[in-house]
Formats: sequence, structure tokens, C-alpha cells
Amino acid sequence: MEGWDPSLLFRIADVAGVVGNGLLGGAVARARRFDLIGFLFLAIVSGLGGGIIRDVMLSARPVALTDPLYLGGAVTAAVIAYLLTLDGPISRRALSLVDVIALGCWSATGASKALAAGLGWIPAILLGVITAVGGGMLRDVLVNETPAIFGGKPIYATIGVLAALEMVALQHYGRPALGMGVAILTATALGLVARWRNWQLPG
Amino acid sequence: MEGWDPSLLFRIADVAGVVGNGLLGGAVARARRFDLIGFLFLAIVSGLGGGIIRDVMLSARPVALTDPLYLGGAVTAAVIAYLLTLDGPISRRALSLVDVIALGCWSATGASKALAAGLGWIPAILLGVITAVGGGMLRDVLVNETPAIFGGKPIYATIGVLAALEMVALQHYGRPALGMGVAILTATALGLVARWRNWQLPG
Amino acid sequence: MEGWDPSLLFRIADVAGVVGNGLLGGAVARARRFDLIGFLFLAIVSGLGGGIIRDVMLSARPVALTDPLYLGGAVTAAVIAYLLTLDGPISRRALSLVDVIALGCWSATGASKALAAGLGWIPAILLGVITAVGGGMLRDVLVNETPAIFGGKPIYATIGVLAALEMVALQHYGRPALGMGVAILTATALGLVARWRNWQLPG
Repeated sequence: MEGWDPSLLFRIADVAGVVGNGLLGGAVARARRFDLIGFLFLAIVSGLGGGIIRDVMLSARPVALTDPLYLGGAVTAAVIAYLLTLDGPISRRALSLVDVIALGCWSATGASKALAAGLGWIPAILLGVITAVGGGMLRDVLVNETPAIFGGKPIYATIGVLAALEMVALQHYGRPALGMGVAILTATALGLVARWRNWQLPG
Repeated sequence: MEGWDPSLLFRIADVAGVVGNGLLGGAVARARRFDLIGFLFLAIVSGLGGGIIRDVMLSARPVALTDPLYLGGAVTAAVIAYLLTLDGPISRRALSLVDVIALGCWSATGASKALAAGLGWIPAILLGVITAVGGGMLRDVLVNETPAIFGGKPIYATIGVLAALEMVALQHYGRPALGMGVAILTATALGLVARWRNWQLPG
Repeated sequence: MEGWDPSLLFRIADVAGVVGNGLLGGAVARARRFDLIGFLFLAIVSGLGGGIIRDVMLSARPVALTDPLYLGGAVTAAVIAYLLTLDGPISRRALSLVDVIALGCWSATGASKALAAGLGWIPAILLGVITAVGGGMLRDVLVNETPAIFGGKPIYATIGVLAALEMVALQHYGRPALGMGVAILTATALGLVARWRNWQLPG
């Protein structure tokens, strides 16, 4: 597979995560009967919020503002969620799958960016998890709900910690692409099983 | 009118917007019987929050911290709102007018600053709207209300999108001062009519 | 006392504040039966949020991400709060004491950093107070409570304003270490008396 570039695959996973989380934001807007502006804001916040918080904390220009695919993906998701209901069993499973793929992808990307900016591995893991869960937290706060990741739901941020840790370890050994792949696979597998078996942390 | 500088007019509109939105923040503090600190925080958040979010996303020092008129305007508004009730019909109309003027002014300023920072026109419109609605959203979240712009109210952010778009177009043709003026006029006219006729987006 | 370095004392006060506020965040997580992730997030937000907001507004890298003692202190606090209940009279008094020490320390640190970044004394006071109260505000917003500092509680942010003002004045006269000491002493004394006598601002 000469010339095969794994970064393309990760970019696809990243933007798919934006669209998927944007659709999840749109679903919240639909449940609350918001208008199109509400759909747009919640899709942008859900899909791009985590990365924006990460970039702002690193004093970097948010990639959400410079790479048109990101904002475009979130706006597309808002429009789709506005036009279609997406609450059939297939839609829900597809959204769930994209969500856990994005969890792994974003945890790894965030940790990797933090390491590249010269941070230590512990703050890198924190930034990885913030990248993965920040958008959903912001969305929950905007609609006056306590962020889902705080408890009473299947583990999610915990999987992000694990994915970020894998990325940090494999980047340390000079294998960032492998780290990204392992993080995505781990988060996808654990995330799906955690929902299926309702794995929770003790409260 | 040789020597006439339109930027002075826009600066007046900008600071009037800070005072007006600061008064709106103070009105929320009054409705909830907050103390003077509550008035100050809500006035600062309402009047300066949108611009601070914009500047932080552009990795720029917030103008709210460097230009004394801004923080001074917000603090003055907090003190006025603390001392006076401002719920008579004239006060309410004046506040409503300043609010829609600020909507146009801030949408245009935010978009213009984003373009000057090298962003594309779509993220520039997003930053324009965030500048205009960000303070009110932060204020609503701080007092546990769902942001008013999400739906069920006369259109507001939609007008900000239009004003930012006008600014982007006219700045593209080298006419930023005209863009600012057109944005303010459009937002003022549409904003007042939208409230009068209760124009809403479909939910 | 040749060779005695007051900055060590202030660093101890600073990190003690992180641990103390982290424990307060953990207590909120316990009251709401959050899981360990909830404890970690609320401890990190409570203990580090104010300083992160300050640093982001100054376009500086958050010290919470670069100095391991800070994130380490918040994580330690989360684990302690998760394992122990800390609601006995001695624990509560100790937490209350650390809280008011941190109020003085953080108001002074924030104001001092803002002055060092070239800001005027009024925005410096604002950033001092944001440093001191920002973490608690974020924590309250995340659990859907109106921030306690807005009213109906003993004065807190007001004491932060005073502490920041003292720091600004004494730094102006070239005595930052004295300013920090005076700010901590003032905030501790006033903070304890305010709670004991339930001093409130008029609403």
C-alpha cells in the first residue's frame, strides 16, 4: 500500500465526528423545539466546542475556524437534523457508532496536539478528554442540563482517558499514527460494549 | 464634511451597545434580586462577553480589557441599573433600540475583526454573530435560563447573520465603513420590525 | 531572615487553594452522587477554572497545564473527596479557612499577572476577582446552580475586589510580596468574619 496515508483516514474520522456530534446536537434542538438558529448553535457547539476549548487553552487558532470542513460539517449536520428526524433504530445506531469513533479520535488528537505544544503527558491526557467531551458538556450546559458525563450514564470520559493515554504512550515511542488507530479502535469497542452492558463507574 | 470620521460614530455605537446590554444584564440581576456584585457581573458579561469570546478565539487581547471605555461603560450600566428601575415604557423602548443597534454594530465589528485576522468569510460571519449574541448567551446560562436566541422569540441571531454578511461583502469591495453603516441600519430596522410583528423562525 | 523567600509561602497558599477548592468541588460531586469522573471534573474546574480563564484572557498558557503541582493538587483533592466525606465540623472549618486564604491569594495573583501583562489597574482588579471566583462560578453553572456570588450569601467577591485593590496599590509602590501578604490576611480576616456574622450586600 505504497503512498497510503493514514492521516487521511484520521481526518475522515475527525470530520465524521463533527458531523455525528452535530447531529446529536441537532437532536437536542429538535427535542426542545428550537428554531433553525438553535439547531445551528447546538450543532456547532456539540461538534466543534471541544476542539475550540482545546485550541483556546493552547493559545492556538481554533482549527474549527480555519479548516472549512469542520464548520461546514457542523452546519451540514444542523441542516440535516432540522430536516430529518433521525430517530429510527438505524439512525440511532449509526450516530452511536460515530460518537464512540469520535471519542477515540478526539481524545487522541487532543492529547497529540497538547504534546506537540510542549505540554507534559498528564495535561495532554486532560486536553485529550476535554477535546472529546467539551462540546457535549457545553451543549448540556446551554440547555440547562447537568453534563451527562458526570455520572449515571455508561462510562464515556473514562474511555477518553484510556484512548488519550494510548496515544501519549505510542507517540512517546514515535508511533503517532498507530496511537491514533489504537485509540479509535479501543474507544469504539469499549464504547459500544459500555452502552450495551450499561457499564458505569461507582457513584 | 471634510475631516468627518465615520469610525467615531461606530465607536459611539459600540460603547452605547455595551451600556445598553449592560443595562439589560442589570435588569436580569434586578429581577432576581441579586446584590451589587451580581449586577456588576451580569452587566460585564452581557456587555462585554461576546467581544471577549471573539477576541479569545482570535488569540487577541480582549478590547474589553484594554480600552477603558468598555469596562467603564459596563460598570456604569451596572450602577445605573442598580439605582434605577428602568422598566417604564420609554426606558424599555430606548433599551430595545440600543439593543438592535448593538446587534448590527457587533455583528459587523466581529466579522470585520475576523477577516482582518485572516479568517475566511464563513467563520467571519460566525464570529460576528458570536460577538453579537455571546454576551446574552453567557448571561442566560449564568442565571440558568436557556439562551433566548435558541427559539420561541422574535428573530435576533438571524439578523446578526445578515448584518455580518453585509459587512463581509462590503469589506470585500473595500468599503468597511459603509458595511458597518449598512449593518447597523439593517439590524436596527429589521430588529424593531421583528419585535413589533413578532417575526419568528419556524421551530 | 536572609535568604527567606516569600514567594514560596505564596506558592504554598496558591496550591493549598487549589486543593481546598478542589475538595469543595468534590463535595458538590458527592452531594449529587456523581461518579469519579464527576469528582475529577468538578475538582479541576473548582480548583483551576479561575486561573485558566485568567490565563486564556491574557493569551498566556494556563499555569494549570504547565505546573504539575496544580493539576496534581486538583486530582488529589478529587480522590480525597471521593474517598472521604469531609463533612465533620473540623473538615468544614479547615475548608472554609483554605477557601478564604485562596480568595485573597488568587485575587492578588490574578491582579498582579494582569499588571505584569501591561493591563491597567481596573481590568487588573477584574482579572483578580475572576481568578478568585471563576472556578466556583464555572462549577455552579456546570451543576445548574446560579453562581453563589450573585447574592444571598455572605460577601465573597467584594472581598476579592478589596484584596486585588491592595495588591495593585502595593505593587504600584514596588512591594508585590507585601501586597500578596496583605491581600491574603485581609481576605482571611474579612472572609471569616463575613461568614460568622453573615455579612451581605444589600440586594
